[in-house]
Amino acid sequence: MSIVAKIKILKQPTDSSWLKLAIANLDTILLDHSHCERKAAGVAINMMFRYPSFHKLVRQLTAIAKEELEHFEQVNQWLDRRGIALAPLNSPPYGAKLKAQIRHQEPDRLLDCLLVSALIEARSHERLGLLGEYCPEPDLAKFYRSLMASEARHYGIYWLLANEYCETNAVQQRLDELSSVESEILANLYPEPRIHS
Amino acid sequence: MSIVAKIKILKQPTDSSWLKLAIANLDTILLDHSHCERKAAGVAINMMFRYPSFHKLVRQLTAIAKEELEHFEQVNQWLDRRGIALAPLNSPPYGAKLKAQIRHQEPDRLLDCLLVSALIEARSHERLGLLGEYCPEPDLAKFYRSLMASEARHYGIYWLLANEYCETNAVQQRLDELSSVESEILANLYPEPRIHS
Ligand SMILES: [Fe+2]
Ligand SMILES: [Fe+2]
Ligand SMILES: [Fe+2]
Ligand SMILES: [Fe+2]
Repeated sequence: MSIVAKIKILKQPTDSSWLKLAIANLDTILLDHSHCERKAAGVAINMMFRYPSFHKLVRQLTAIAKEELEHFEQVNQWLDRRGIALAPLNSPPYGAKLKAQIRHQEPDRLLDCLLVSALIEARSHERLGLLGEYCPEPDLAKFYRSLMASEARHYGIYWLLANEYCETNAVQQRLDELSSVESEILANLYPEPRIHS
Repeated sequence: MSIVAKIKILKQPTDSSWLKLAIANLDTILLDHSHCERKAAGVAINMMFRYPSFHKLVRQLTAIAKEELEHFEQVNQWLDRRGIALAPLNSPPYGAKLKAQIRHQEPDRLLDCLLVSALIEARSHERLGLLGEYCPEPDLAKFYRSLMASEARHYGIYWLLANEYCETNAVQQRLDELSSVESEILANLYPEPRIHS
């Protein structure tokens, strides 16, 4: 059963079973979320390294990387407040499976990288929104709502960059393919309390 | 001939020939500097990935990464203003030669990573200081002076982190070795207009 209006670029909305598991494991979700924000900053910086002369991309990804580091700090403050130690946590295979979809030849690679990031940001936006609405701890719910808007902006930026550097038709067609894959990956994951699980 | 008071952790101060070449090639220095700031952010984030549960390290490197991204943006604004396109530029072998000094076994690896970063930051601090004093364009000189203080703070942070996670004696001894290597590397580089050349 789905619980929110569909986010435009996602094929399938998140199922209520994800939310239930997340709410029953808020500490683990916070720790996983911390890793997600650090990874999001790392992905943006890696793309800047790969396309150092793409002016608009470099400028926008710099801004995203800075914001993700701020989110990382904010999530880590929540961990501190709750006495949760920073610790490694196994990632769900979501990220790796999406990354495996990225084609190796340019300009396909650039397009795929941008769209995979757009999809991950869109899914984060959707799920932080769910936590913002249904998390039983009001302060934490408020925190999730405060992050939602940035993640929506991030997926918009990745999508706009795709359209900046690639043909609109190619973007549409590939987004259609990748968003099907993204929903399919989530439908087949072992249920774990993770942001992208 | 050396032109400034020695920075404490550097074995040899920068020679005036470096400054002469840099001032004769300010545009190239700015482009190289842009790459340096992006790399500095990347290095800090990579260390956070490698030691995700080292609370103090993660917290301090997050702050450094954010600042380096801000420096990156500021240098890129200077490139824009001067009509210099973002473009790849071959790096001098300085970074790779220092990285080759990092031992692979823990905890040596952590110590070496922190000290190599401390040395790079200290050298940046010294050289941005020289540009801040001798750059013939007053606005640009002022910009370099504005960055100097952060780079000094960064080398302090890396050095303090080394002392946080490793024994003081081990830190001192290894810093002594690595700072000799750092000065030796610079003494033997082919002269090019680069921040670390
Ligand atoms: Fe974020
Ligand atoms: Fe994001
Ligand atoms: Fe910097
Ligand atoms: Fe720095």
